[in-house]
Amino acid sequence: MRVEIVNTGTELLLGKVVNTHAAFFGEELFKLGLRVNRQTTIPDGEPIREVLTERFPHADILLITGGLGPTSDDITREIVSELIDRPLRLDEAVWEEIRQFFIQRGREAAENNRRQAMIPDGGEVLSNPNGTAPGLYLPAEPGRWPHLFLLPGPPRELRPMWRDLVEPRLRQIVGVTSLPWRNFRIHGIGESAIATVVEDRLAAIDGLEHGYCARPGEVDIRLIGTQAAIDSASAVIRGAFEQDIVTESEDSIEKVLVDWLTRLGQTVATAESCTGGLIAHTLTNVPGSSAVFPRGYVTYANEAKSDLLGVPAELLATHGAVSEPVATAMAEGCLAASGADHAIAVTGIAGPGGGSAEKPVGTVFIALASRRHDLPTIVRHERFAADRLSFKSRTTRAALDLLRRRLAGWI
Amino acid sequence: MRVEIVNTGTELLLGKVVNTHAAFFGEELFKLGLRVNRQTTIPDGEPIREVLTERFPHADILLITGGLGPTSDDITREIVSELIDRPLRLDEAVWEEIRQFFIQRGREAAENNRRQAMIPDGGEVLSNPNGTAPGLYLPAEPGRWPHLFLLPGPPRELRPMWRDLVEPRLRQIVGVTSLPWRNFRIHGIGESAIATVVEDRLAAIDGLEHGYCARPGEVDIRLIGTQAAIDSASAVIRGAFEQDIVTESEDSIEKVLVDWLTRLGQTVATAESCTGGLIAHTLTNVPGSSAVFPRGYVTYANEAKSDLLGVPAELLATHGAVSEPVATAMAEGCLAASGADHAIAVTGIAGPGGGSAEKPVGTVFIALASRRHDLPTIVRHERFAADRLSFKSRTTRAALDLLRRRLAGWI
Repeated sequence: MRVEIVNTGTELLLGKVVNTHAAFFGEELFKLGLRVNRQTTIPDGEPIREVLTERFPHADILLITGGLGPTSDDITREIVSELIDRPLRLDEAVWEEIRQFFIQRGREAAENNRRQAMIPDGGEVLSNPNGTAPGLYLPAEPGRWPHLFLLPGPPRELRPMWRDLVEPRLRQIVGVTSLPWRNFRIHGIGESAIATVVEDRLAAIDGLEHGYCARPGEVDIRLIGTQAAIDSASAVIRGAFEQDIVTESEDSIEKVLVDWLTRLGQTVATAESCTGGLIAHTLTNVPGSSAVFPRGYVTYANEAKSDLLGVPAELLATHGAVSEPVATAMAEGCLAASGADHAIAVTGIAGPGGGSAEKPVGTVFIALASRRHDLPTIVRHERFAADRLSFKSRTTRAALDLLRRRLAGWI
Repeated sequence: MRVEIVNTGTELLLGKVVNTHAAFFGEELFKLGLRVNRQTTIPDGEPIREVLTERFPHADILLITGGLGPTSDDITREIVSELIDRPLRLDEAVWEEIRQFFIQRGREAAENNRRQAMIPDGGEVLSNPNGTAPGLYLPAEPGRWPHLFLLPGPPRELRPMWRDLVEPRLRQIVGVTSLPWRNFRIHGIGESAIATVVEDRLAAIDGLEHGYCARPGEVDIRLIGTQAAIDSASAVIRGAFEQDIVTESEDSIEKVLVDWLTRLGQTVATAESCTGGLIAHTLTNVPGSSAVFPRGYVTYANEAKSDLLGVPAELLATHGAVSEPVATAMAEGCLAASGADHAIAVTGIAGPGGGSAEKPVGTVFIALASRRHDLPTIVRHERFAADRLSFKSRTTRAALDLLRRRLAGWI
């Protein structure tokens, strides 16, 4: 089945607002064994007519976002009704739902909100508890138009609607009740190195579809197919990457760590120089992280490293702040000061300034100390040559991965 | 001039990797008085042929990203050469550049990298110091094909190439030497509220184009046109939003603050509960922030608030951690402990759990204390009802904005 996406929204083409729809749909459709064949973004207003006319013959399923609002630029509903020759009628139940949405927020629906309750004949309403614009599903008319899903643009409205209404409907259309799939997340090996090791063996497995998704410092291998195919592929991947597998799900490494520490009843504290708070921010993005993360130190200045973590001034003077001994002292000082079970510390040169021939921009020392006496403090020396933000993000991922290896008993 | 974008890349449609090209191009083209009329994303390989054939008649300028790599799926160069009937020839200078790129990294160019040095007749090479794939510019042949820019997919290669080679070339094509433009960044007022106040007056200014870009907690008003038009529009905006204007440029609020503190020779420290390090992370994204940001505390647990910031345990017991007195004590404790000139503190309920009828999820207290004795400690009580990450981001922006108002002398 050919799936296409059409996103309307001038703001998506004017800069600053990043279009996350393709990534979201791509990920969700993969689980149904579907791929996105084309994604098109156009400004609000009239261009939707031309694009739909053009894409109808090419798609089996067309997902359209945006243009369902109350303003004069929001005309997706009207254009679709025209193109498929199904007139719009006011749906009283939908209109009541919209009025209630406003009443609950202490406001009143305006006359132009009525347009949002206009439904074409044969259209199925996808109700929207998070906004005023309901979605619509129109079944395909073979040879004339594909399955049409009209969906709201804002992700906070779209995503719940997808989960509750669109995905179940797509499963019916595609005839998939639940296609097995699995995601492997690998840390610290590049996409091409991963492919070199497993591509031939994965490609040889009957009934398997697979794909790679690379992000800085992390690669996902995504599998879909028969259960037997997924099991064979999983055995190949586990054999090849064992300790480098962060998770066999789509959970982030921070979620894996928070869950794991919660089960163990343990805590972690952070002492950050070059990442400037990103490790703490990442851990605290996980709901429930307060149970395992009592505190973090952002020790940007040397004085803060001495004051808060007890790093000796002479150590800083002798080796420099970016050094293995200082990283060790930061981790051990953080452990002592925080009373946590584990302490992660990082010190490095994020750039663009501050590099030298001996310690170029991108140099970083990542240390991990743990309370249990038989676990040694570990320091890793890495170089992540990249822009400032990517450097911070790579370092954060590597630091969290060090803790993962410790919890797994590998270091 | 009609500008279109075509992005090739299976990873952009498979999920996880977000396509930032449309936002980047949209922003850059706006400065040249151009808008993106359509953006299309397709998988690697053959689909590029169909899309280019289809889009050639509709565009005046076509920006194509991806498909310039050395693997068999990377065929943009070859397909373009076919479609415009200009054979490819090996460019020895480009081939030498690619070989040098590898040598400098201690590796050797492979035979398939030769393909990246194949240039169609009449093509202008856009050299790529950050990768192996050079870009290409092919001037329009009216009635047959538009101006074609073949650009690398990875943003770290694309963006410098844009700045150094593509933008100057586009200026020539469009005949723009330097069109005046200005960006106003407004904090804390929604897009529709902003439009209600200034839209009619901006729309009435001759020779002005304007657009709004909304992000959580922040709206940009972008102006382009004659200098006189921009000046009139600026006067309208300044009159309407005075103290809410973060900057009259595209600088982020964190950049504005770091520059301002640097000029003043002042410093800021942070004490974060619910934002979990995001304020520190945001400030330290700015190169040079180490001069103004000595340290930050992430005091997630109550014990950390007492230990590190001296928040009295009875205050926590009486009012709860999420309260005005605790926010005040955190900010003043942070000021004292850090020795900084200003201290920002936040305490709130990020959710999804932890809310109550009295203090629902999204409740947050934001405090600012300053060393100068005539400046009182300020606390703001806000409610940012949103998912956990948006809550953290809104709170961070509001906290930084509080400091901006203080530096400006308004609070």
